Amino acid sequence: MPYAKRAGVNIYYESYGKGTPIVFLHPFSTNGYIWYFQSFAFAQSHQCVVIDERGHGRSDKPQQGYAIKEMAADVVAVMDELKIDKAILVGNSIGGMLTMQTNLDNPNRVLANVIVSSGTNLASGMPEEAKVAFQKDPAGTMGALLEGAFSAKTKRERPELVELMRASFNVEDNFPRHTFLASITDPGGVFNWNISDQLKNIRKPTLIFAGEEDQATPVAANKFLADNIPGAQLRVLKDIGHFYQLESPAAFNKELAQFVKQVAQ
Amino acid sequence: MPYAKRAGVNIYYESYGKGTPIVFLHPFSTNGYIWYFQSFAFAQSHQCVVIDERGHGRSDKPQQGYAIKEMAADVVAVMDELKIDKAILVGNSIGGMLTMQTNLDNPNRVLANVIVSSGTNLASGMPEEAKVAFQKDPAGTMGALLEGAFSAKTKRERPELVELMRASFNVEDNFPRHTFLASITDPGGVFNWNISDQLKNIRKPTLIFAGEEDQATPVAANKFLADNIPGAQLRVLKDIGHFYQLESPAAFNKELAQFVKQVAQ
Repeated sequence: MPYAKRAGVNIYYESYGKGTPIVFLHPFSTNGYIWYFQSFAFAQSHQCVVIDERGHGRSDKPQQGYAIKEMAADVVAVMDELKIDKAILVGNSIGGMLTMQTNLDNPNRVLANVIVSSGTNLASGMPEEAKVAFQKDPAGTMGALLEGAFSAKTKRERPELVELMRASFNVEDNFPRHTFLASITDPGGVFNWNISDQLKNIRKPTLIFAGEEDQATPVAANKFLADNIPGAQLRVLKDIGHFYQLESPAAFNKELAQFVKQVAQ
Repeated sequence: MPYAKRAGVNIYYESYGKGTPIVFLHPFSTNGYIWYFQSFAFAQSHQCVVIDERGHGRSDKPQQGYAIKEMAADVVAVMDELKIDKAILVGNSIGGMLTMQTNLDNPNRVLANVIVSSGTNLASGMPEEAKVAFQKDPAGTMGALLEGAFSAKTKRERPELVELMRASFNVEDNFPRHTFLASITDPGGVFNWNISDQLKNIRKPTLIFAGEEDQATPVAANKFLADNIPGAQLRVLKDIGHFYQLESPAAFNKELAQFVKQVAQ
């Protein structure tokens, strides 16, 4: 059965293919499906591991325990289960946070990092009224946030992506309301997690993608990461929002293939 | 665990949402992921069930047993497991065959049918040299077939879809070579299955989509279904190949929502 159990929580994963392992980590409120255009394409030459993070998709959804540190430990548990020593980590948004946290807690398990639209200390950039709105009308607020997470081009040409993100958030079997509330209030969770002064300790090759039109984790948030992770490379993308791999899969795959070729062992 | 077991074979499924059930059945050599743009969107108002057919994705992959009749019985087994009495069946390609076969074998379990690019008695339309090529160079032949299964517009604008289909076929963990060979040689399998003279016994509301540029199951093959299933409606789609739901998800979802509204109980 494709689960790794850690501290009583079952973490769902899938693994396809053989070769230098790549572990894919999805954004908040989605699930591993978001890597559909990567997991099979790259499994032709690599071991691709797709994880549903706790509280999401097919994994267990505990009432509490959504600190990034906890969720990153789940990633390592999946790698243990699959007997993967080192992997290239590819994380989008909260998935990027798990990538960074894994570098801090288990640097010897990481070959390299690809961070797609992420950040740290996000709450500090969030107005107080936004936090209140999140509590009062989670679905409405998240809907607005998701709308702002896509580029104008994507909204025009790929309206199904906006609908997909709204649906992933709305469907309780995928992302229950308690996961959402426990995550945003957790002192070490998605919004409050702050490793600003530890970024310098991330020592693996790191490529960061930032969508020029991403209002969820704007370019500045990603530039902060790139400026503070030694040697990190930042790519700012025109016509892209928060989800490069989904908004422009062919272009993303080409860049990922290039990076993987450089760092794979 | 999300499996239904029938005659020793574990069939993987996922179920999201509540409401009139919709069961999604994928094409040959792919898996349930292909409904990514439908399963969550429709789960906001329906129970969406996505199945990995035997020999595919996360389901068991026996050496033999790939008759459409067997695979359709698996679909009913999943419905039994989920205690679903009746469902709207949505099937693409071989998934459409499973839809039709379920109508014949278990008509009382079907509310209505949506068939996306399918057919019956496909081998009769296949030149002998194509069959030989399939045996000699499965990957190459399937690659050419998949290339011809997309519209020019899709190939131009969404190159990742062609790569995805090629990868789904190539990745052994998803679709092993023995599933392929056992399926194409099975007397009741994907190419040899022939219910031409039983189509008249399908009595549920049926909507058939055919892509104008689909060379895998051309318009004529779908028109034959529509001409012989009483009351079936045929929609021929410009700029679309074999995978309407993936090539143009927003348009497909709009049409599916309309149809579902008409037939849902």
